[in-house]
Amino acid sequence: MTNQPQHLSGAFVATTLTHFQQRAPLVHCMTNDVVQAFTANVLLALNASPAMVIDTEEAAIFSPLADALLINVGTLTRDRIPAMRAAIAAARAANVPWTLDPVAVGTLPLRTGFCRELLDQQPAAIRGNASEILVLAGIDAQGRGVDSLHHSHLAITAAKQLASRSGAIVAVTGETDYVTDGERLIAVSGGDLLLTRVVGTGCALSAMVAAFCALSGDRLMLVATACQLMARAGEQAAASGAGGPGSFQQALLDALWQQGAEVQP
Amino acid sequence: MTNQPQHLSGAFVATTLTHFQQRAPLVHCMTNDVVQAFTANVLLALNASPAMVIDTEEAAIFSPLADALLINVGTLTRDRIPAMRAAIAAARAANVPWTLDPVAVGTLPLRTGFCRELLDQQPAAIRGNASEILVLAGIDAQGRGVDSLHHSHLAITAAKQLASRSGAIVAVTGETDYVTDGERLIAVSGGDLLLTRVVGTGCALSAMVAAFCALSGDRLMLVATACQLMARAGEQAAASGAGGPGSFQQALLDALWQQGAEVQP
Amino acid sequence: MTNQPQHLSGAFVATTLTHFQQRAPLVHCMTNDVVQAFTANVLLALNASPAMVIDTEEAAIFSPLADALLINVGTLTRDRIPAMRAAIAAARAANVPWTLDPVAVGTLPLRTGFCRELLDQQPAAIRGNASEILVLAGIDAQGRGVDSLHHSHLAITAAKQLASRSGAIVAVTGETDYVTDGERLIAVSGGDLLLTRVVGTGCALSAMVAAFCALSGDRLMLVATACQLMARAGEQAAASGAGGPGSFQQALLDALWQQGAEVQP
Repeated sequence: MTNQPQHLSGAFVATTLTHFQQRAPLVHCMTNDVVQAFTANVLLALNASPAMVIDTEEAAIFSPLADALLINVGTLTRDRIPAMRAAIAAARAANVPWTLDPVAVGTLPLRTGFCRELLDQQPAAIRGNASEILVLAGIDAQGRGVDSLHHSHLAITAAKQLASRSGAIVAVTGETDYVTDGERLIAVSGGDLLLTRVVGTGCALSAMVAAFCALSGDRLMLVATACQLMARAGEQAAASGAGGPGSFQQALLDALWQQGAEVQP
Repeated sequence: MTNQPQHLSGAFVATTLTHFQQRAPLVHCMTNDVVQAFTANVLLALNASPAMVIDTEEAAIFSPLADALLINVGTLTRDRIPAMRAAIAAARAANVPWTLDPVAVGTLPLRTGFCRELLDQQPAAIRGNASEILVLAGIDAQGRGVDSLHHSHLAITAAKQLASRSGAIVAVTGETDYVTDGERLIAVSGGDLLLTRVVGTGCALSAMVAAFCALSGDRLMLVATACQLMARAGEQAAASGAGGPGSFQQALLDALWQQGAEVQP
Repeated sequence: MTNQPQHLSGAFVATTLTHFQQRAPLVHCMTNDVVQAFTANVLLALNASPAMVIDTEEAAIFSPLADALLINVGTLTRDRIPAMRAAIAAARAANVPWTLDPVAVGTLPLRTGFCRELLDQQPAAIRGNASEILVLAGIDAQGRGVDSLHHSHLAITAAKQLASRSGAIVAVTGETDYVTDGERLIAVSGGDLLLTRVVGTGCALSAMVAAFCALSGDRLMLVATACQLMARAGEQAAASGAGGPGSFQQALLDALWQQGAEVQP
């Protein structure tokens, strides 16, 4: 176990994206009310298929048919918890990987208790900001909401602990993203400040993480690839001359699409 | 009954759009969580007025005041069914036409049973992809979600049967759209691949179908006009130089708006 | 009390925006399903932080931690009322200002009764169109939905009465916006027709109003500043060459962002 993070090669990212687009995973998204459309559009831009099925009975039937499941607690209500539990249980029984986005865990009790409960359900991956990862790892953290008050590198140790305990690949995202399986550590740099001025870029990245977990291969590197693609798309969108967060959001979707077009044979 | 589909004339489409914009129908949309904003923006671009009223008591009061009602089961939950039933019953009592979008019927039991129940409630129109129309017509179909695994022309016979049985105009959409009243058949071509890479284009088309049912005239041709306007807007958006699904989505709304501007006196 | 409305100076608007961006208020938004993403993106473009927390228990914990609370009843259901009540009570106990957007009050009984109840809960501000303000002030009005059938100036007297009775700053928006504390009256002109062809611009303005109530100072002028910023952004978006409501929506977010960039030191 070294403290020196590794980086992905461009060739690996390109090859993985090609595999991803050929596989075109169907992603069952149980996510928050705010980011549903953007999450779907991010997955569609990458040739994946989003499906938002939320009824308890239907969710348990659908998750085993999907290639991946995303659980995001951003607008959790007590009513939705049974549906999420049922979808996870059915996904696990069918060996469908599921990913957790623990939005704003910490101060808010319903989601915090629920996310802690879910750590025992063998998530394939967890993506959060530094505050969220610190909370899930059991380290005190102060967060008022969805914005992290901590730099991502301050949560590296917490991320490794959380990965070791839960068995999940943990991605703590920020100006630099760190992805770990508890031992190895990959750093992903890039992105742009405007990614923080468009709602749902983190939540959509979690959906990408979920989707990349559907591929076979080294899951640590697959999750890091999702982070790398979003970071690079953010750079490309900024470089395209976006005049603000409105045009940036559209340029981001275009950039994700174009990355795929570039690697296609 | 001939197998040779008819086509709409450009003059009919233009005249109908003028009538539509003058009427500016108020459309009560009970639709899924993912596509609400895009659906509203599509209707607004055409000078219609969307209104999303979902409480059971309010929905039954509102649907008779609207010019059309849309029922879309994409993120159906058990709790929403009574509200949809009440809205439909009140709409029917007031002769307000209602349209069904049977998103992902087939494998998922709650929505499939509910949509079958609704076929007896005299929908004015039904819009779905080939899988969905095959399921509703009672023909076995395999679908994993919202993406159709069938070409639309394979569902023409099913669409005619469904139209005859339900009394609805049935639109089965895909690379070519087919619209039928059970006897006549209109084919609508056009569109662009990017329409499948933006979430909600099908759901928004269903809202347009619902809205066009508010006009007086030959409902078969009105529904086909809605399909034609979306297909043409897709072509125009693609021709505008959209660099991917982000800019395409915006160009699509602009194109719908501009089609209206062109036909205005 | 004069009938001659006042206007904001450009210098005041610029200074207030600078304070706003430094404060970067955290806004607890309990808003309707249709406009969540756009509302969040408008706040983010102005350097505020949106957070949508809707569970009853969590909402009551979160609102005192926020700088402002928004209550929007656009897609109200019976289930959400206790959560909104709890958030308001907790906000008031912590001196967090809360703002009401009474979407489509009038014909629809659930929201109308609830909004009337909330008038006793000391809202900091209320923003609505003329129909909505007339209804809340107890004056008969006819509205079919979210579109106002009245010009905003016809509701000036109603707005003053409503402000006096509730203690709130009342903004009645339309082609010209009027903002009053019951005695003083500020008129805000500007904007663009396309603001009415993008869903959620009014709802997002209510979120801005809520956020500006987090600043210290003359609340009447703070609320009017929010209206002025949206009107000016609408003008700038139209002047940027938007070809329709799709590109206009993006240009509007860019314009809000750029207004902030201009006043930064």
